[in-house]
Amino acid sequence: MPGLPIDHAGLETLPFEECLGLLGSVPLGRIAFLSDGEVVVLPVNYALDGQTIVFRTAPGSKLSAAADEGLVSFEADYYDPWTRSGWSVLVTGRATVVYEEAETQRLGRLGLEPWISTVQRPYWISIRPTAVTGRRTPPTPAPA
Amino acid sequence: MPGLPIDHAGLETLPFEECLGLLGSVPLGRIAFLSDGEVVVLPVNYALDGQTIVFRTAPGSKLSAAADEGLVSFEADYYDPWTRSGWSVLVTGRATVVYEEAETQRLGRLGLEPWISTVQRPYWISIRPTAVTGRRTPPTPAPA
Repeated sequence: MPGLPIDHAGLETLPFEECLGLLGSVPLGRIAFLSDGEVVVLPVNYALDGQTIVFRTAPGSKLSAAADEGLVSFEADYYDPWTRSGWSVLVTGRATVVYEEAETQRLGRLGLEPWISTVQRPYWISIRPTAVTGRRTPPTPAPA
Repeated sequence: MPGLPIDHAGLETLPFEECLGLLGSVPLGRIAFLSDGEVVVLPVNYALDGQTIVFRTAPGSKLSAAADEGLVSFEADYYDPWTRSGWSVLVTGRATVVYEEAETQRLGRLGLEPWISTVQRPYWISIRPTAVTGRRTPPTPAPA
């Protein structure tokens, strides 16, 4: 099997389908967006709905400001500190609030439960990707 | 011991010293900045130098563009999927390239080794925090 292409940083560049698979394998990502002219990055507990990233938030929260901005950047990663290996997937996309009741109910069945149940997070925000890229540390050769 | 203050999202707000301790406990963070008018978020393998975040990169890399921007946002987190608990620390600060040879040599002794050694990353970039905030999921009560 031929190896994956290597980028200028020495990382494997992952095909789209593999990026999606990895995005679906972790519960926490980070969303970055402009808020009052400043770049903000926040962690979010998310799920993948097909190719769309979805998460819950409360109205008026800083996170809900992401939907005003429209274009956002999203990142998920995983690393193993012992093997010093890992991957990251970067997504650029448009963030929008999900208003349709039927859609909200459907998303509610995705199994994404907030980690903290004392606070209501009735809003769903979706990020529909316009670009998805992924990188992974290449396999290290076995010690001689 | 009185509990930590709880924010609107139901998370404990962490004191500065605890944020610094947590920042120093993980090897990977994410830096968000403007690049050609777009918000970019990228993972970085970093170390803490006192209160300053430092990482290596290659000249001309997208990451090195962070230093042109000046003001950047940085995030580190940790979560335990089994207990659904975790923390995150957000840093706002000014990113600058470290040019002084003596300083570069000193940073080289911090023990921050690139995960991929095939690519030269002679640049050091530092982020001197102007604001540091931290959140943690509160301890869950023991099941009745």
